[in-house]
Amino acid sequence: MSALLSRGEFEARLRAVGAERYHSLHPFHRLLHDGKLNKGQVQAWALNRYIYQARIPVKDAIIVSRLPTADLRRTWRVRLEDHDGNAPGEGGLERWLKLTDGLGLDRKVVASEAQALPATVFAADAYVHFVRDRTVLEAIASSLTEMFSPTIIAERVEGMLRGYDFVSKETLSYFNARMTQAPRDADFALNYCLEMASTRAEQDACIAALIFKCNVLWSMLDALHHAYVEPGHVPPGAFKP
Amino acid sequence: MSALLSRGEFEARLRAVGAERYHSLHPFHRLLHDGKLNKGQVQAWALNRYIYQARIPVKDAIIVSRLPTADLRRTWRVRLEDHDGNAPGEGGLERWLKLTDGLGLDRKVVASEAQALPATVFAADAYVHFVRDRTVLEAIASSLTEMFSPTIIAERVEGMLRGYDFVSKETLSYFNARMTQAPRDADFALNYCLEMASTRAEQDACIAALIFKCNVLWSMLDALHHAYVEPGHVPPGAFKP
Repeated sequence: MSALLSRGEFEARLRAVGAERYHSLHPFHRLLHDGKLNKGQVQAWALNRYIYQARIPVKDAIIVSRLPTADLRRTWRVRLEDHDGNAPGEGGLERWLKLTDGLGLDRKVVASEAQALPATVFAADAYVHFVRDRTVLEAIASSLTEMFSPTIIAERVEGMLRGYDFVSKETLSYFNARMTQAPRDADFALNYCLEMASTRAEQDACIAALIFKCNVLWSMLDALHHAYVEPGHVPPGAFKP
Repeated sequence: MSALLSRGEFEARLRAVGAERYHSLHPFHRLLHDGKLNKGQVQAWALNRYIYQARIPVKDAIIVSRLPTADLRRTWRVRLEDHDGNAPGEGGLERWLKLTDGLGLDRKVVASEAQALPATVFAADAYVHFVRDRTVLEAIASSLTEMFSPTIIAERVEGMLRGYDFVSKETLSYFNARMTQAPRDADFALNYCLEMASTRAEQDACIAALIFKCNVLWSMLDALHHAYVEPGHVPPGAFKP
């Protein structure tokens, strides 16, 4: 049996997962941020990423349903408000559709999910199943990729505005909101894990949950890269730019 | 509302799904069957396909648990015997490990699933979740890829024996058993769907279930192709030949 990690060591191990496996390191993200993709490839990214966005409030509702106190549920519920809004036309999912609108995609096609890559759907659904089937601690730890997102978002907005004339500040409004939401959410989730993981096995389970989540994000970019950067690999039925 | 399909039309639509989307059409399979892969690439295929093999008896047990009569459960239970055997060292999963043994892979590493591509795990798990969460009719329809498997298996065994000196008849023994099991299972499942789908909506749900299952198999080969045929795309933590 390995010894319990100190709070500082445990946090360092979690941060190391991001340094090694967060999707900011994926070649597709570099192409996206460096303005190296064509409009069809950026469309494919936005259409597929919609699947992930659509699963976020679902997985957050599952987490709310599994939290034991009103305090915890109320705290986590803020994420539902962020993504689903408080009225029609509001919220992060709606802002994602503004991005797909801005890219010239048909909103009905995007929301139908019919043209997404199956691998994207399997990965995003794996995240939903994970937060339902694993411990609450693992479910919360799997959200910790948000610790790493402010950097990638800043790079992405800056790089996309510079690299693509078909992208505007308005169409990227989703990311502005995330710049403040993600650090607030990540702080809460990190402190929860640091407090509640009281055995080394629980600490290791948190680290594994964060690796799992990095794999979800990474595999979505692998699927995009294979289908839309390598020539001739769009699977049957998927979006053709 | 579309009209109910005749039995013949319904069967033809199901077979058309295979003709358009079965993974026999995937470029990775052509490379595999034509002897165009190196040993490391064949190892990666066998190690990843193990994940799918390991989920088969799990999804079959879920289907058994959802069938309403002893007759139906007994019929479907044969699949559990085929895959898990009646004693240690028997069954299809064990025969798959003979294949990975024959390819020089460490059985413990294969069975740990630790070096599989995350996309493989997400796809195989999606199949398990599908048979748990959808109707029994859809769960059974999703097994109908077995209608198309005898042809691909015959090609695969013949092509691999000819193309690779590191593969023997003994290591491919898994596929011999499948040549008789798959048609028997597919006949039963096809008749079940033809009988039990009594509305057009149910027929369409069967067709969609079969498309879903083709997507599972296809996306596993996409992931293999991206990681092991395109250079430099093995994701963090996955098998390196």
